[in-house]
This record gives sequence, structure tokens and C-alpha cells, in this order.
Amino acid sequence: MKKIPAIIACLCLIASTAVRAEPTTTKGSTAMPMTEDLRALAPALEKYGQTIVIGDLWKRPSLSARDRSIVTLAALIARNQTVELPYYLALALDNGVKPSEISEIITHLAFYTGWANAVSAVQIAKDVFKGRGIGADQLPAASAAQLPLDEAGEAQRASRVGQEFGNVAPGLVQYTTDVLFRDLWLRPGLAPRDRSLITVSALVATGQVAQITYHLNRAMDNELTQEQAGEVLTQLAFYAGWPNTFSALPVVKDVMEKRPR
Amino acid sequence: MKKIPAIIACLCLIASTAVRAEPTTTKGSTAMPMTEDLRALAPALEKYGQTIVIGDLWKRPSLSARDRSIVTLAALIARNQTVELPYYLALALDNGVKPSEISEIITHLAFYTGWANAVSAVQIAKDVFKGRGIGADQLPAASAAQLPLDEAGEAQRASRVGQEFGNVAPGLVQYTTDVLFRDLWLRPGLAPRDRSLITVSALVATGQVAQITYHLNRAMDNELTQEQAGEVLTQLAFYAGWPNTFSALPVVKDVMEKRPR
Amino acid sequence: MKKIPAIIACLCLIASTAVRAEPTTTKGSTAMPMTEDLRALAPALEKYGQTIVIGDLWKRPSLSARDRSIVTLAALIARNQTVELPYYLALALDNGVKPSEISEIITHLAFYTGWANAVSAVQIAKDVFKGRGIGADQLPAASAAQLPLDEAGEAQRASRVGQEFGNVAPGLVQYTTDVLFRDLWLRPGLAPRDRSLITVSALVATGQVAQITYHLNRAMDNELTQEQAGEVLTQLAFYAGWPNTFSALPVVKDVMEKRPR
Repeated sequence: MKKIPAIIACLCLIASTAVRAEPTTTKGSTAMPMTEDLRALAPALEKYGQTIVIGDLWKRPSLSARDRSIVTLAALIARNQTVELPYYLALALDNGVKPSEISEIITHLAFYTGWANAVSAVQIAKDVFKGRGIGADQLPAASAAQLPLDEAGEAQRASRVGQEFGNVAPGLVQYTTDVLFRDLWLRPGLAPRDRSLITVSALVATGQVAQITYHLNRAMDNELTQEQAGEVLTQLAFYAGWPNTFSALPVVKDVMEKRPR
Repeated sequence: MKKIPAIIACLCLIASTAVRAEPTTTKGSTAMPMTEDLRALAPALEKYGQTIVIGDLWKRPSLSARDRSIVTLAALIARNQTVELPYYLALALDNGVKPSEISEIITHLAFYTGWANAVSAVQIAKDVFKGRGIGADQLPAASAAQLPLDEAGEAQRASRVGQEFGNVAPGLVQYTTDVLFRDLWLRPGLAPRDRSLITVSALVATGQVAQITYHLNRAMDNELTQEQAGEVLTQLAFYAGWPNTFSALPVVKDVMEKRPR
Repeated sequence: MKKIPAIIACLCLIASTAVRAEPTTTKGSTAMPMTEDLRALAPALEKYGQTIVIGDLWKRPSLSARDRSIVTLAALIARNQTVELPYYLALALDNGVKPSEISEIITHLAFYTGWANAVSAVQIAKDVFKGRGIGADQLPAASAAQLPLDEAGEAQRASRVGQEFGNVAPGLVQYTTDVLFRDLWLRPGLAPRDRSLITVSALVATGQVAQITYHLNRAMDNELTQEQAGEVLTQLAFYAGWPNTFSALPVVKDVMEKRPR
């Protein structure tokens, strides 16, 4: 029950000069004026929001509210939609995403959606964290003991990419190995399954179908179920638009069909 | 003649702290400072704007000013380019797009470009409408008697999508039928031909070529002519960039060639 | 040595009400608070920024700091990421990009990424230029003597595009010839090689792989080396995200392999 009122405000936040200072909570009346704006200008949109998104989508059992929050944050940061970010950052905290995980999500997306997206998200998260009294002690250190690496799998990936593109963009290929797969992905503050979840979400949300195959397989290797994967697409339909998800559907289907049972 | 001065300001609006409060009219001098900015910093850009976009593109007879406004709004909302939205919302009203149609356009694009895009547009439209004294009486209700449904066509679509993706993302497939094709598309406040026009425009403007075939055919079933379709692309070249339209060209050509004569 | 401290601030700028007024220099302490924000909220991100982006990427010898600035500006403008634009405009000036070239870059990108992107960039550049005392005398005129045209090559291009799409979108095809290839590309304020560089960068940064082949070949005809092209991708990985560059890699590889030696 506790989550419902928290979510009720979720479609109503909007950019304004004051927005960054306010919505550090999802439980307040601060968002209400916007509900009224939606109701006044686009009553059907407000109705869909209440009945379908709040009243149905977020309650579907096939994906947890925590996972839905992670998927939604990834979509918003990947699309640089800072307007709704304060609300969904706060909702994510309410739904059990840890501050340290949010810090890692933003850092991860710097590489998977562009540096400026992450820098914008940092600024917004700063205000949300401040409003909740979240300090440096709850955030991950710059460096930490790494998670174990699947040496064989990584060697295979690096060899494949190196053979294919090592002569085309040697710097890019080297950074991919050194910075991404031998550093970023091994940071302990976020489970590999969650890193895969946000990577896949960001790819779908930005229409990058070409790399869904690799990362969705990686996600499913890390225990994302087929049912959850389908529900990730369903969640993203509302937050990244129907076309992005329909462009992803054939690729996701192909991955599912080719997985070993 | 009345439209020309209205359009003269159209390339000049820009985000600033004050922008949302001002440009609720397209007929004023408020935009002039920006023309001066363009002229000062990028005189060639200002020249192209005056001679090509204002002086030529918007006057081309193969697509009405009203349709051009709808296409342009769809592109700006789909790309979340709120900076120029106040001006083009006002211009759309001047060009005969009804307030109720703008409300429906925004609601429609929530599903075809992502929820946050629509919420941002609502906030901006609110100010534009307020500046013109447009009240709730001119806006559509949340629910209304539906337009007639092509049951056979919709059954065929639903069956095809269900067979292909029903096991991949059952929630997404169900929402597509229930919320989109049996509800949103049947709302009476916007002609089906116009819904198709904004859907195609949003797809082109966001580089989503995969779904142009279905929606352009639907648009042409609803009386969008081949000449108008080509002119939609021409309009979008300026507002969504040349690459998006050139990526769409082969798909649009293919649709045109396969249409029954 | 002079460039290093200038770059140190480069990952730290963020949108705020005050941001547009301040960062007209890359050499100040104004950006420092943001470094502290990054360090506080996402220490790993700040570490990657200092060690990899500032400490390594920008120093790589295979692409000049000037070219890296041009590539980065193109990516930010193409993605409408105005937040970091003030800093990177100032850095570009420090790295030897002339004010007149920046004006031309923005004008060029109006056509290759959408008009609103350019208008937003104009407003931000205005403040940066003002802060440095850059006046109209340093900016290009609206019209100027054109660079020589490769008549045979352009006739071939126009004929090919006309045959393929002249019946689909005649207006678009005509504007492409008249406005783009017989006007914009011939403006003298920016070397053709640099126009190609920003066009390719914008295509990669927005996931428009279909047109990379034509424009990368054109860039390499204009003396962009294979090594530089690979390094452009490497630079873009950080500023437009890994997925955009990995989607471009197969196309870039194909272009390189098919070039006459």
C-alpha cells in the first residue's frame, strides 16, 4: 500500500525554474499542481496516467517495483529527460534502490549514453540526495575491490572485437577493454545483472537495436528471466515511446528463441 | 498575407529563463531580439531562415500551413525541443489547429515518443493557452464517444502482432491493442488522418524507420496524398535535420511504389 | 602545458539557472564546484573524467585538440546537450577554432541536426562570445564568395539522388541541391574537410549510420586520414556514448576497406 500514493504523483513533474529545488520527495503535495495542469490541458493524458500507468503498469507482478524504477531511470537518463528525473530518483529510493546504486547507475550510463547525460543526472541527484540527508558515507568510493572477472568470456569478447575493429579505431577498442569491461563492469556497487538491466534499457530507449543481442544475452546469463525481459519492454513503451520498443521486439524475440533452454 | 509576418519570427525563439512567459503570440515584436541574435552571431543562418524557410518552405502549396504546423509540432515534441515549442504552438493556433487538437496531439505523442515529452509539452502549452484565454471549455474531455473502429483491420493487426510477439512481451502487446488501437486512436478530438500525420512525423523525426511502412500506409488509407507525404519529408528536413529524412526516403519510396493505384 | 588546466574543468559544467552567464572561460574556478559535485555524488565518474578523459583521451596524438573540439561541439549540438556547450565552446576557442568557424559549424548543423539545435547553440555561443569580447567583425557575412564547386561530382550526386527520390519528395531533393550542396557547403568560412568532420560526427552522435558512408568518403577525399577517422570515433564514444560508436564501427570499417589505396 505504501507505494501507491508515492507513485500517484509520478506523471506530473515538469521542468520549471523551481523544479530542482522541490521534488526530493515522492510523497508530497508539491506535484499536485501538475496533476491539475495535466487534467486542465490534456484530461485524457491524465486519465491514462492514473488508470494505466499508475493503476496498472507499475503494479504488474512480472517485474518488481525496484526493477521498474531502475529501467525508468535508465530510460530518462539515456534520453536526457531531466524534467521527470527528480521524481523518479526519489521514487527509486522509495522502491529500494540504494543511493550507492544510483551513483553507479549514473556512472555506468556516462559510458553507455554519453558523458553529458551523466553530468546532468549528477546535478539533479545531488539535490534529491541532499533533501533526504544522504551523505558521502552512503556513496561508493572512486576505487574499490573489483568483482571477479570471467576471464575466458572477456578474453573471447576482446579478441572478437579486436579482430573486427582493432584496425579501425584502436583507441576505442582499447578503452572498451580497459575502462569498460575490466573496470566499470567490475565495480562492486551494482550487481552485474543490474548493470545489464540498465544497459539494455538504455539501448532500447535510444533506439540502439544493434547491441541489444549481446547485452540481453549477458543480462539473461545474469539471471534476468524471459518474462522480466518482456516486462522491461512493456515498461519502456510508456517511458521511451512505443516505436523504440517495437523496433526492439524482433531482436529480443530472436535472443529468446536462440537461448539454450 | 496575414500569415507572413506571423511566420517571420519563427526561427528566432530560444530558451531563456523568461521564454515561457512571453511568446504566447506569434504576432509580436517579442521574438525580434532573437532575430538580432541570429543575425549577429550566425548571419547566414538568419538569411537561410528568412529566404528559404519563411520565404519559401512554409509557402509551398503542396501542403497546407495547418498541416505544416502539425508536422512541425510533432517533430519538436518528439525530439523534446521545448525551446521553440511556444512559438510553434502559437503559430499552429494561427494556422487553424484547434486547441482541442493540440491537446490530442500531445496526448497521442505521449505514447509515440515517450511520456516525459508529452508532460513537457503540456506545461508549455498551458502558458500559450493561458496567454490566449483558451479555457477548459475548448479542450477535449478525458472520455468521449469513440470514432467507429475498422474491426476487421484491427483484428488482423492484433492477430499478426500477437502471433509474432505475444510470447515475447505479452503486456506490451495487450496495451497496444487495448490502450492504443481500441482507445487512443478512436478518440474523436483528432481526425484519424491527422493522428497518422503526427505519428509518421514523429517516426521520421526520431529516426524510427522500421514503423514508417505501417503508419504511412495507414495515413494514405486516410487520404494523405503521395504529394503531401513527400512534402511532409521536406518540411521535416528543416525541423528534424536532413539525415532523418534521408534515412526515411527509401522506406517512403517503397510504400509509395507498393500502394495500389 | 597551457591546455591542461583549461581541460581540467571540462567534465564539470552543468545546467543551472546561472550557468549561461558564467562559463565564458575554461580557465577559471567557476567550474570547480561541479567537480566537487561529481566527486561527492559519483566519485568514480569524477575519477574516470580526470584520468581517462582529461588525462588520456584529449592528449592522444592521433587527433589534434582542435579537431577534438570540433568533433565534441558537433556531438553536443547534434544531441542538443546545451548543458555542457558553454564550456566546450570556450575550450574550442582556446584550442584554435575561430569564432567565424564556430558560427559556420552552428549554421551547418542547423541542416544536419535540425533547426532548433542550431538556434539553441546560437544563444549559448552569444554569451560565450560576449564574455570574450568577440564582435561581429570576427564573424562571417551572410553571403560571401563561394568556394569552387566540383561540378562533375555534384552533378553525379544530384543525378543519383534525383533519379532515386525525385518523385518521392521533389522539394527535399531540390533543396538538397540548391541550399546544401550548391550553397551551404561552398561557404568559405569553414574548410570542406571540417564540414565533413562535423557532418560525420553529427551522424555518429545521433545514430544515423545510413549516411556515414557518403560523408566519411567525402571527409577522406578531403584529407581526413584513416587514423583520424578512428580517433573521431574514439572521441565520440565518450561524448555520444559507446552504443552510437559501436553502431558506426562496421560502416566505418567498410568505408576504410573499400577506399582506393
